[in-house]
Amino acid sequence: MTAADANAPVGVFDSGVGGLTVVREIMKLLPDEPIIYFGDTARVPYGNKSQETIIRYSRQITNFLLEQHVKAIVVACNTASAYALEEIRDSVPVDMIGVVKPGAYAACQATRNGRVGLIGTEGTIQSHIYSKMIREAYPDYHIYAQACPLFVSLVEEYMLDDEVTRIMAGRYLKNIKQAGVDTLILGCTHYPLLSPLLQEVMGGDVTLVNPAYETAKGLRKLLDKKGLRFHGESTGEKYRLFVSDTPKQFRKFADYILPCTIGEATQVMIEAY
Amino acid sequence: MTAADANAPVGVFDSGVGGLTVVREIMKLLPDEPIIYFGDTARVPYGNKSQETIIRYSRQITNFLLEQHVKAIVVACNTASAYALEEIRDSVPVDMIGVVKPGAYAACQATRNGRVGLIGTEGTIQSHIYSKMIREAYPDYHIYAQACPLFVSLVEEYMLDDEVTRIMAGRYLKNIKQAGVDTLILGCTHYPLLSPLLQEVMGGDVTLVNPAYETAKGLRKLLDKKGLRFHGESTGEKYRLFVSDTPKQFRKFADYILPCTIGEATQVMIEAY
Repeated sequence: MTAADANAPVGVFDSGVGGLTVVREIMKLLPDEPIIYFGDTARVPYGNKSQETIIRYSRQITNFLLEQHVKAIVVACNTASAYALEEIRDSVPVDMIGVVKPGAYAACQATRNGRVGLIGTEGTIQSHIYSKMIREAYPDYHIYAQACPLFVSLVEEYMLDDEVTRIMAGRYLKNIKQAGVDTLILGCTHYPLLSPLLQEVMGGDVTLVNPAYETAKGLRKLLDKKGLRFHGESTGEKYRLFVSDTPKQFRKFADYILPCTIGEATQVMIEAY
Repeated sequence: MTAADANAPVGVFDSGVGGLTVVREIMKLLPDEPIIYFGDTARVPYGNKSQETIIRYSRQITNFLLEQHVKAIVVACNTASAYALEEIRDSVPVDMIGVVKPGAYAACQATRNGRVGLIGTEGTIQSHIYSKMIREAYPDYHIYAQACPLFVSLVEEYMLDDEVTRIMAGRYLKNIKQAGVDTLILGCTHYPLLSPLLQEVMGGDVTLVNPAYETAKGLRKLLDKKGLRFHGESTGEKYRLFVSDTPKQFRKFADYILPCTIGEATQVMIEAY
């Protein structure tokens, strides 16, 4: 392992655009840090694909980010965090953090009655990783999990406050609500965009946990611990976006999510990595 | 170009499971023909990805099918037919047919008032390929096209007769219905599974055109013309399925669509082709 350069960028990746909700939180909490983002738009979504495939894709993206000399990698995708992070981190020469551990930790801090709801993709729910992490620390806690496979498509269609999304949220959340949870983990990077609607369906007393914010805090802690906070002069573009499909459709979503307008995304032939 | 072997299988491919609706029609119309199906389940869906990416994926799949010595290739995906077929067919040593031309032809035969509706993925609609084909033959015909991006997800969730699907169909079909079409092309291989619901929304007077059936007829015509109809003894497995992700989730859909139970699918590392 070679020593990472504190003035190198942080690498962040996701299956597509959803991980930009994590980038947004990093930008707010660590405004000096340069960021390289990779969105696997040619192969999105990950949520209903197998662990084996998600591991292969995550390895390729990690190799690409390492070639860009990132100092740390944030897996800004719940499915990849659940399926691939533990499998590949030992072979990667920089620190990697995912969104699951920070999200699980935040939920444990937030709950008062030990009843925690979790929503995510099929892959994330089937991995049981949130449950394992929470029950390791708090064996008495109860986790009520539900896959919400249509939510990603609904968000990507910008149907954030729509009758159809409300009906689906009612169905998906029915059992979780009946279980009396006081905390709900938004276990997919797309879901924070549905927060107002989900809060309405769950009721105002339930705390929604957005792992994106907790992940940004986790990244700050990591960079501080390793002495890797950016302390140089900004040269070149601070934020760089890469995608595996053509950049055209990525733009709209990036402008929608991010607090500032940033340069065009560049296409990468990711299967070559 | 080497002479194709009449007793070789027909190759059929799609972005995922939807193309099995085409396989189903081929099985019915050409019950003797052996078939090799490839579903690109590790990279599904194609409908919202770029032409450049769809061409690259289609080339890889075509290379794989040629390695299996297929005698003809059916592009059982509207998006790939729209974006990639014309780009790659000249470099392929066997005949290729897509689903667009048969579908456009059938719609022209079906319409009495020259007003034709078309629904499909973003890619298929943006390619304007159905409109071009129809207007070349019938310049006076009017085509009313609408992308229905949520339909694929709704079908893959088996929400074929669901309140949410009905609401979305009402929205997507509103303008097409108001335009007074008497024919509606189901321009995505997933959509025939929604036929009862779409017929209900459009009204009983509107003819729904399923390009899958027309494509099977087109294939029969092609094989007859080239003297390529199967006339041998069946040896080995008649129907073989290949997928790019692990085969697990493919099974359920295959059993749901196909008229007979067939063997397990085999995983192929498609990006190596």
